Amino acid sequence: MVTALAPLELLERTRRGEAVDGESIAELVRRWLTDEVSDAQMAAWCMAVCIRGLDAERTAALTAAMIASGDRLDLSRFAPVGDKHSTGGVGDATTLVVAPLAAAMGVKVAKMSGRGLGHTGGTIDKLESIPGYDVDLDLASFVRQVRDVGVAVISPSDRLVPADKRLYALRDQTATFHSAALVASSVMSKKIAGGAQAIVLDVKVGSGAFFPTLAEAIEAAQLMEEIGRPWGRTVRYVASAMEQPLGRWVGNALEVRGAADVLRGRGAEDLRELSLRLAAALAEAAGVAAEGEGRAAAEATLASGAALRAAERWVEAQGGDPAVWTDPTALPQASLRLPLVARQSGWVAALDARGVGEAARWLGAGRLHPDQDVDPTVGVELLRKVGEPVSEGEPLAIVHCHDVPMGDRALEMLAGAYQLADEETPVPRLILAEG
Amino acid sequence: MVTALAPLELLERTRRGEAVDGESIAELVRRWLTDEVSDAQMAAWCMAVCIRGLDAERTAALTAAMIASGDRLDLSRFAPVGDKHSTGGVGDATTLVVAPLAAAMGVKVAKMSGRGLGHTGGTIDKLESIPGYDVDLDLASFVRQVRDVGVAVISPSDRLVPADKRLYALRDQTATFHSAALVASSVMSKKIAGGAQAIVLDVKVGSGAFFPTLAEAIEAAQLMEEIGRPWGRTVRYVASAMEQPLGRWVGNALEVRGAADVLRGRGAEDLRELSLRLAAALAEAAGVAAEGEGRAAAEATLASGAALRAAERWVEAQGGDPAVWTDPTALPQASLRLPLVARQSGWVAALDARGVGEAARWLGAGRLHPDQDVDPTVGVELLRKVGEPVSEGEPLAIVHCHDVPMGDRALEMLAGAYQLADEETPVPRLILAEG
Repeated sequence: MVTALAPLELLERTRRGEAVDGESIAELVRRWLTDEVSDAQMAAWCMAVCIRGLDAERTAALTAAMIASGDRLDLSRFAPVGDKHSTGGVGDATTLVVAPLAAAMGVKVAKMSGRGLGHTGGTIDKLESIPGYDVDLDLASFVRQVRDVGVAVISPSDRLVPADKRLYALRDQTATFHSAALVASSVMSKKIAGGAQAIVLDVKVGSGAFFPTLAEAIEAAQLMEEIGRPWGRTVRYVASAMEQPLGRWVGNALEVRGAADVLRGRGAEDLRELSLRLAAALAEAAGVAAEGEGRAAAEATLASGAALRAAERWVEAQGGDPAVWTDPTALPQASLRLPLVARQSGWVAALDARGVGEAARWLGAGRLHPDQDVDPTVGVELLRKVGEPVSEGEPLAIVHCHDVPMGDRALEMLAGAYQLADEETPVPRLILAEG
Repeated sequence: MVTALAPLELLERTRRGEAVDGESIAELVRRWLTDEVSDAQMAAWCMAVCIRGLDAERTAALTAAMIASGDRLDLSRFAPVGDKHSTGGVGDATTLVVAPLAAAMGVKVAKMSGRGLGHTGGTIDKLESIPGYDVDLDLASFVRQVRDVGVAVISPSDRLVPADKRLYALRDQTATFHSAALVASSVMSKKIAGGAQAIVLDVKVGSGAFFPTLAEAIEAAQLMEEIGRPWGRTVRYVASAMEQPLGRWVGNALEVRGAADVLRGRGAEDLRELSLRLAAALAEAAGVAAEGEGRAAAEATLASGAALRAAERWVEAQGGDPAVWTDPTALPQASLRLPLVARQSGWVAALDARGVGEAARWLGAGRLHPDQDVDPTVGVELLRKVGEPVSEGEPLAIVHCHDVPMGDRALEMLAGAYQLADEETPVPRLILAEG
């Protein structure tokens, strides 16, 4: 039997970059959860891991200890059950498309989503902009809806992986987020406890994203795939660009509108493309589409209207107004629309996702303080994105807001996010890697 | 004016190994002291510094912020005032020799010392074994005694560098001790606040010591010298070996006895040699001996009995019984003396300082828990040290204790610390570097 290292010895070795056994890491987490190990010790360990790294075996041990901190759903009797995770971006409404699309393809989608963090949006905030939608189903109702309706998206249950919530808060205040191992164990502990067998990851790369480089994004995705394997989970990933926002809408109800456009066969090309890729990967991972045939099946399902009908069934089952998918006026709306006017003719050379996200956050679409409520109506409509031409005096974007001073400040922020050039700029690549 | 970085940004940059300005570090410390920055954040920063390092300029800024957390003594009107610091070892009674010796050479010695930590001893615990000695003079009495008697050694005042005590406790629980920058700022903040202009550092190298390698010890010493310079402090160092204990006694009253032997012109050669070097360096730094002439002056002062008389004046002034320097029975003694008998003839090839320190600590000379009282009487007498021959059946060491079971366990630990060899082993080098 392996004897776990004392926390101080574990910290010491991790600081020096020496190997430690997984059991000692599991014991550290357990003792931290019972307050025998202090937050300061855990924070110091996280910092050492951020700098020194943690290999797959130890990350798996950490993940297992996180999972053991709470309950675990067993959804294998409803197979194939699928789940999707995004590392977070701006304008990323893919879950609102992928969940019903994959459900229409035969995957039971059982998903817990988060709220917006910093300048990035969160699916739960977006869903709450749908009148009546209940994000807080209890676990029994969640499981029932997955079984009967084929798709449910709720807020994370405190009963699953309570350790993650606590560790997340600690990492948030100690600048110890940027570790593939800590990210992978956080994501995979929740996915594994959530019960899905097929998991698709959307890892974002770029200025508005968690991972600054593609290599880091792929490293994290592969680590997650490896963690899932001994638990019998099939993990696929799509690495996508997040230099500029995804889609043409940033803001909660506005993004529901953007997703609805895609579900109705129109909408922003990039949001549609990424949603199709993710749904295809999930369908293949879940075994409802043959390898290499997911994409065509997803396109056909979207074109047939089956995805739209699945979205209506899903939202209705969860208490929301299904009209949001076909009638934009069923969503709450802001009273003012202020245009950002181009001061020169040319092409959009860059559109900083972080800057756009911060403008939307400033308007109230996100939170400046953790306890703040978000405003479902406010946000930004992007009329021009990178590679698109604009003439002097034409609007680049429209700010949706309630009063002029707030809107003016957001317009300034937005102006700082746009870069115009005299020469034509190519439309940037969206899909960077798949695996 | 430089605007300080927000704590999270500072943590982020330190994690990535990027430069930050000193003012941001000072602000981090200030905000931590007012509880705006959490222990977890401070611990994460310490871990990042341990791994990434901190240059001299930033370490100086940290030191200044630590000093600013409390009062600062100005002893310049009594110049030359000297102080000595040891990074901690086993059997290290040099302060008990150096303080009166340097005083007898004309340096006013104003020193605050610590208690034992882990397997290493502390000067304050040793001084408390002297009947009547008061380690807790208030600062006014301390300054008066420095002026009138020429030497005073007390426990650290809470009024000087309160930040250090708190940071020390945090580093202790988070395995963030091993950073030249954090060590240097801790030591130098206390030395600078303590008021001495001349400072000599005894940096220990080896298994029983803080620094595993000479290079690390010298790096830390040079960093401390650099930190002291803008404050007008002259810093010298002696790097000495701590593979085996210093002197022939380990334990509180026993070490006073060992120091008394040296003050009376006898005693252990290594303790005597290191004490002479440190006193010489301090006398030269303080300007009471010309460069290169300190050693001869120290020897002459020791031989003349002036150091012994200074020791008697010092202890008497501080309420203690001066007879301890000439009469071993004036010190408290343990009732039992158990020998560790050599099982083979040969030479002592190694004597692990940490092992000996742990044996003494087990007996009660040190603490297993922070709030424990130490026993002044117990400890170990080392009859044979590295390079010395022993015949089968002869005692290698004697354990001073109160009961046989405790003593037997200490004998076992001690036996583990000794390594005997069939061939003659050279006496190891004591002084590794000076600067």
